[in-house]
Amino acid sequence: MFLSFEGIDGCGKSTQARLLAETLRSEGRDTVLTREPGGSEGAEEIRRLLVEGAGERWSAETECLLFTAARRDHLERTIRPALAAGKTVITDRFADSTRVYQGAARGELRAMVDRLHDLMIAVEPDRTFVIDIDPATALARGNARGGKEDRFESLGLGFQQNLAAGFRALAQEYPDRVRLIDGSGSVEDVAARVRAAA
Amino acid sequence: MFLSFEGIDGCGKSTQARLLAETLRSEGRDTVLTREPGGSEGAEEIRRLLVEGAGERWSAETECLLFTAARRDHLERTIRPALAAGKTVITDRFADSTRVYQGAARGELRAMVDRLHDLMIAVEPDRTFVIDIDPATALARGNARGGKEDRFESLGLGFQQNLAAGFRALAQEYPDRVRLIDGSGSVEDVAARVRAAA
Repeated sequence: MFLSFEGIDGCGKSTQARLLAETLRSEGRDTVLTREPGGSEGAEEIRRLLVEGAGERWSAETECLLFTAARRDHLERTIRPALAAGKTVITDRFADSTRVYQGAARGELRAMVDRLHDLMIAVEPDRTFVIDIDPATALARGNARGGKEDRFESLGLGFQQNLAAGFRALAQEYPDRVRLIDGSGSVEDVAARVRAAA
Repeated sequence: MFLSFEGIDGCGKSTQARLLAETLRSEGRDTVLTREPGGSEGAEEIRRLLVEGAGERWSAETECLLFTAARRDHLERTIRPALAAGKTVITDRFADSTRVYQGAARGELRAMVDRLHDLMIAVEPDRTFVIDIDPATALARGNARGGKEDRFESLGLGFQQNLAAGFRALAQEYPDRVRLIDGSGSVEDVAARVRAAA
């Protein structure tokens, strides 16, 4: 099984991915927890090019190519070998993040993202959990952490609202694969909803 | 005008690119001399990921994505602005190198390289000079320099012969754009042939 968690910054998806991995391991399932961008040695090096430096360092198109290069490496070196060995793979972000972030930045990019994905990746998770939370709530809860990767505040609340709408639209676009999970309430509440949808 | 030089390692193309740039400048034409992979700040950083480390560090597919990301940045930040300002651009390698190197490594990659190029680059030089030289002659002339980028010897003479054949095939595939230049004789002899074909 190949599972992914998606959603805006601060929605709680990394916590939920970790909790689901712990639950599956406690049930005796060999589980690999990974994340994007990154998740393999080469992809982590590409990640450094993507997350460091000024916002206008790369155009949206070059950024898509770098995300796709990192994803291809992650798929070849981490995801596929684990699935081939019969393990369950849980990834914190995958191709849906590129679809939503680039599409929210410039709507016409979505077609390019899809063609690049079909050509170079062509794999989807078996199940995707979108942790749905109102961006203002995420901010109020203090989920939008600071530190080096402080995209949440730098992008602005309006942009985060576009992203949240983009992730919700994915659930309609891929009804068989994507489950929209209400991200409100306690961590345990949300984890119970994830398990019920898995 | 957008011009490129192509050919196997040690064929003399970098010398010829520099000589043509000097000739054009002496004629009063504002000329930018650049190279791939690299040619812009971001592309030079991606170059470092590509040329350093072990040969099996990236798969051919991930390598194609990284070359294309570097090319997109080079195109946006260096080539297009120079052409828009009325300058002549001469590049030491462009998309033809990816076509020939990946195609020689694994023939079925050529279709992927072409689709990726059409989607993300979609630009060709106005004129391409392929400096054609027998790999054994390049070795005997000592053109295949050592140093950090010693792909020539590490790839072997047989692979270099495949590459030379691949570059020759480009001249047949793109007869309007690509000129095959006899790379034998002195540097001045070859430069005269380049100018005659420009």
